[in-house]
Amino acid sequence: MSQLITTISRSYPWMKTPFIVSAPMRVMSGPTLAVAVSRAGGLGFIGPGVKTQDISSDLQKASSLIKSLPVSQSQPSTLQNQPVLPVGVGFQLWSDDLEVAISTITKYQPCAAWLFAPRNGQKDLDTWSRRIRHASPSTRIWIQIGTLAEARELAQGSEEPDVIVVQGAEAGGHGRANDGLGIMTLLPEMMDCLPAHIPVFAAGGIADGRGAAAALCLGATGVVMGTRFLAATEARISPGYQREIVRASNGAVSTTRTLLYNRLRGTVGWPEEYSPRTIINKSFIEHQAGRPFDELKELHDEALKAGDAGWGPEGRLATYAGAAIGLIHEVKDAETIVQVVQEEVLQRLSNVQKANSAQ
Amino acid sequence: MSQLITTISRSYPWMKTPFIVSAPMRVMSGPTLAVAVSRAGGLGFIGPGVKTQDISSDLQKASSLIKSLPVSQSQPSTLQNQPVLPVGVGFQLWSDDLEVAISTITKYQPCAAWLFAPRNGQKDLDTWSRRIRHASPSTRIWIQIGTLAEARELAQGSEEPDVIVVQGAEAGGHGRANDGLGIMTLLPEMMDCLPAHIPVFAAGGIADGRGAAAALCLGATGVVMGTRFLAATEARISPGYQREIVRASNGAVSTTRTLLYNRLRGTVGWPEEYSPRTIINKSFIEHQAGRPFDELKELHDEALKAGDAGWGPEGRLATYAGAAIGLIHEVKDAETIVQVVQEEVLQRLSNVQKANSAQ
Repeated sequence: MSQLITTISRSYPWMKTPFIVSAPMRVMSGPTLAVAVSRAGGLGFIGPGVKTQDISSDLQKASSLIKSLPVSQSQPSTLQNQPVLPVGVGFQLWSDDLEVAISTITKYQPCAAWLFAPRNGQKDLDTWSRRIRHASPSTRIWIQIGTLAEARELAQGSEEPDVIVVQGAEAGGHGRANDGLGIMTLLPEMMDCLPAHIPVFAAGGIADGRGAAAALCLGATGVVMGTRFLAATEARISPGYQREIVRASNGAVSTTRTLLYNRLRGTVGWPEEYSPRTIINKSFIEHQAGRPFDELKELHDEALKAGDAGWGPEGRLATYAGAAIGLIHEVKDAETIVQVVQEEVLQRLSNVQKANSAQ
Repeated sequence: MSQLITTISRSYPWMKTPFIVSAPMRVMSGPTLAVAVSRAGGLGFIGPGVKTQDISSDLQKASSLIKSLPVSQSQPSTLQNQPVLPVGVGFQLWSDDLEVAISTITKYQPCAAWLFAPRNGQKDLDTWSRRIRHASPSTRIWIQIGTLAEARELAQGSEEPDVIVVQGAEAGGHGRANDGLGIMTLLPEMMDCLPAHIPVFAAGGIADGRGAAAALCLGATGVVMGTRFLAATEARISPGYQREIVRASNGAVSTTRTLLYNRLRGTVGWPEEYSPRTIINKSFIEHQAGRPFDELKELHDEALKAGDAGWGPEGRLATYAGAAIGLIHEVKDAETIVQVVQEEVLQRLSNVQKANSAQ
C-alpha cells in the first residue's frame, strides 16, 4: 500500500495524501479548476472539450496560471517547480482526434493523460498510450474502466497503464451502462484481478471524507471526485446547473441512467456500452409518462433558451451528475473541498479505528 | 461513534468489535449458523421459516445449543450467561403471522427481532415493534430499510427501533427493487437523515474486511453479511447452491435483480417494492432470449428433481445471492469468517491510516 503511494508521489510530488483527484469532466473541468485542485495538493484534470482542439487553449491557460505562481527554491516539490505541467488532461477516445491530442500533449507536456471510452476497446487504449508516451515520456497514462472484462483486457494489452481508475455505477455522466454496480463490490473484486503494482483510483459516488475513506479501505490508492467539483467555485458550469447539484438530494431516486438527454441534446456516437447518470427532471418524467419525443425536444430547446431556469426539478435540460448529489450542500472553492475531504478521511479512519479497537 | 458501540455492547455483551452480524436469510440462516456466529463474538440471526411456526423449532434448537455450553462464573459476558437468548430472529412482515411470532418470542426471548418487508410500511413496523416489546421487553427491535423515504417514515413512527439496518442494492435475495443504489452513497445520505443516537448496521455487498472497513467509514456501527455466510459450514443450504456461491464471480455481471425465479418457484405475495438479486443461470438467459415461461417452468421443475445439479451456470434453480459473490472463494466455518473479517478490518484501517498519514 505505501509502495503504491510512493509511486504516485514520485510522479506528482506536489500531491498530499490522502490523494484526491478531480475528474476530467467534459467542458466543465476547465483549467482554473484543474490548477486549483493541484495547488491544493490534489491532481486536477482538464476534461475533454467539445472538440479536441479546445484542450489546447485550456492547457495554455493552465500553463499561464502555473507560471504566474512564485517559484520557490527551498520547496522543490511545489507545483510551480515541476518539469511537467502539473495538471492532467482527459480524452474521450471514441470522439477525440488522436493527432490533435498528440500535438497538444507534445506542446504542453501535461503530467497525466486520462483515457476513457474507446470505440475499439484495448486496441485503441494501446494505440493512444503508445503515441502519448512517445510524444511525451513524462506524461503518465491513466485508464478508466468499469468492468472486470475491461480489467482482463487491460492485462492483455501491450501498454501497461501507470494508473487505473475504477469507476462504479454511482458516477455521474457517462459510464458503463448495464453491467455496472457500485464500487462497494466492484472495486475489491477488481483489485483481486488487477496487477498489484499499479495504483488504482476509485471513482463514482465519492463526495466527502466518508466515501473517500471507504474507497481507500476497499483498496484504492486515491480517489476521484467529479460531481463534488461541479459545485466548486472554479467549475466551468452554468449557475443554474450548479444550483441544481447543490439542491438535489436522494441520489438513489433522483438520479438515473438514461440516454434521453443525449437524444434531446443531439449527442450521438457514444459506444453502446456507455450511458450517462443524470438528475431527473421534467424531460425524463414526461418521457416516462409517454409524452412523444418531438414534444419533449421542442420543450427542451425552449428551456435551452431560458438559460439557468432550464435546470432544476421544473427544468428540462441535461443535468449529468452522480448519485452522491445528496452529500453536496454548498458551493466551495476547490482548495477547501480538497482539504476538508483529506482532513475528514484521516479523522474518520482514526475514529473508526479507535472506536473498534478499544475493548 | 464510541457511544453507539457502547449501546450495542450493553445489549449484546458477548459481541466483539468490529461488530459482525449474520443476516436472517430465509430458511438458510438456521440455529446452528446463528449460534456459531454469536459464539464467535458476532450476532447471529435465524431467518424466517417457510411458515412462521418453523422458527419455534429453530429457536428451541438454538436454545439447546446455548444451554449445552459450559457456564463460566468468571466471564459474565460469555454467550451462555445471558438473560436473553443470544441470537436474533428475522421476520418477513408481509408473510409472517404476528400472533405466532409473538407467542414464539414470548417463549424464547431472543435478543433481537429483525423486521423486514412490511406490506403496510411504517404502520406494520410500529405494530410489530409494539407487540414484540410488550411480549419481551429485552428483545431489541432491528428494522431494515433501503430508501430515504423509509428513513423519513421511520422518523414519523410511534416505535423507535433499537437498531436500523440500511441495505444497499448489492444485497442478495429480496430488497428494494428499483430505487436502490449501493451503500456507497446510500449509507452516508441515510446517516445524515437518521437520528444520531440509533446504531446503524450496513448490509449489502459486504463479504470481507475491506467492505466491512468501508462500511464503518461510511458511518455504520457494524456490518451485516448474508451471502458470505451462505458459504459457511453451518449454513442450512443445499451443497449445489453453496458450491455455486463459491464458484461464481464477477458479481456486477453474473447477478441481477429479477422476479423470474420467484415465478418459477411459485413464490407469490411479495410487496411490489421488492425484488431479489440472484446469480444468473440458464433460466434467466433463456428467458432473456425469449423462451416461453411454460417451457422454462417445466425445465425448472425437472432441475428441482435433479437436486444439486440444478444449480450452477448450466442449472436452472433460483440462486439468490449478493453482488459480493466474487469475493467469496471457499466454504469456511462461521467462527473463522467472523474472526478473519474482524482482523482484516482492523488491519486495513491501520494500514490505510498509516500509509496516508506519513508524509
